[in-house]
Amino acid sequence: MAVDPTSVGLPDDHWRPTYEDIHILIKNISEKIRGEFKPDLMVAIGGGGFFPARVLRTFLKKQDEKNPEQLRNVPIQAVGLSLYEEVAGISEEMIGKEVIRTQWLDSRSKSTPNSDLKDAGGLLGKNVLIVDEVDDSRTTLHYAYNELLKDVRSTIAELSPEERANLPPTRFAIFVVHNKLGPKRAELPVLTSPADDKIEDGVSKGVYYYAAETMPPVWIDFPWEQIDIAEHNRLAALARQHGLSAPRRRGA
Amino acid sequence: MAVDPTSVGLPDDHWRPTYEDIHILIKNISEKIRGEFKPDLMVAIGGGGFFPARVLRTFLKKQDEKNPEQLRNVPIQAVGLSLYEEVAGISEEMIGKEVIRTQWLDSRSKSTPNSDLKDAGGLLGKNVLIVDEVDDSRTTLHYAYNELLKDVRSTIAELSPEERANLPPTRFAIFVVHNKLGPKRAELPVLTSPADDKIEDGVSKGVYYYAAETMPPVWIDFPWEQIDIAEHNRLAALARQHGLSAPRRRGA
Repeated sequence: MAVDPTSVGLPDDHWRPTYEDIHILIKNISEKIRGEFKPDLMVAIGGGGFFPARVLRTFLKKQDEKNPEQLRNVPIQAVGLSLYEEVAGISEEMIGKEVIRTQWLDSRSKSTPNSDLKDAGGLLGKNVLIVDEVDDSRTTLHYAYNELLKDVRSTIAELSPEERANLPPTRFAIFVVHNKLGPKRAELPVLTSPADDKIEDGVSKGVYYYAAETMPPVWIDFPWEQIDIAEHNRLAALARQHGLSAPRRRGA
Repeated sequence: MAVDPTSVGLPDDHWRPTYEDIHILIKNISEKIRGEFKPDLMVAIGGGGFFPARVLRTFLKKQDEKNPEQLRNVPIQAVGLSLYEEVAGISEEMIGKEVIRTQWLDSRSKSTPNSDLKDAGGLLGKNVLIVDEVDDSRTTLHYAYNELLKDVRSTIAELSPEERANLPPTRFAIFVVHNKLGPKRAELPVLTSPADDKIEDGVSKGVYYYAAETMPPVWIDFPWEQIDIAEHNRLAALARQHGLSAPRRRGA
């Protein structure tokens, strides 16, 4: 029988990861991501994806091609996405139904100083890792993946046959710290194995999926949302002491 | 006399803030920022500004104008800036000399769903808070402030006289967690008091400046850069125990 959280002094059944918990969860899954997907670029979905992307970058450093002793950062591009309920000045009936872009990829800046190719914000021919904190309803992730895919496909369609022939395949992966078990409101073509990865017109037909932790669909109190971080950490320690942290399963 | 860090078991004199230290530093300065500058929008300089911006957002929540019981997030836009040494594929002589944009504001997405004004990525008529982790040489902050200012000025120049007359002033502020004492390689027109804030052609001539902590120019080991976060926290606690943390001065 599970312990009732309120019987041991916890205010509720919320899952309370500390900063260090999230840091370690990201560290644990980073090896799999690096070995299997080999990301060239991250697209962080702000604001939730900012912290995971920054931590993950630490664990994804790559050897520089010209100078193997030098470690290079995987670049991070940011996009701003909100479900309608989070944005001021919108009508009732739109709430929860749609995702809006508050920022998208900047197609004018270059992902590398030497790139001249019109390259869909630096995504073309890359292994692109989309990063967010949590996969709850899957709505935002679905939107991000599909819109990035659309951008890449339409840019590839504008290339000359020669440019197309020289372009490596573009692949997408999703990384979230927490995947909540339960029904999703959107489907993703998740690859069950890298062997299933099929390229069509220069783009993978599937998406790699990595969750650092798969957990029951309970509310998560993120550390960066806390007014009192010491109290948050105290409650997190209390929950752990009573075995009330969500189960930690690696991979997905 | 200062204690020699190596005599108490520390590997060096690096400053090692924990996640919780940074969270609390941001909390402590947020009241001043909210009361004095009242930011409408944050521009986070990635990757270092991502974590501070996300935490600061928690402490800057604003009452919704239409529904005062509802708290609204201050939106975050991201820009990607790197000093040349951090980017692959560049020549020796460019290192340390220039800032490159890996991402800039997205002028096509809207900062609010109802805005139709061509608005320099959502900055026009706003109090814009530029967020980064550290002010070391000031090079990146100087670049960000000047380029955003240029964007705003050129967009204002394109407005009709009527639009210009209806536009509130645009103001800039800079927030960093750590400001390192010592010589800077670039100057900012820092306002010493809000009373000195003068508007010219719709834009403030000065920049508000907030540092959560002003510290000696020693190396900072950021928590998100740590492979072993538990060891980092152990060393941070050890330093604190021996009075070897940097002095904590609020405000700037």
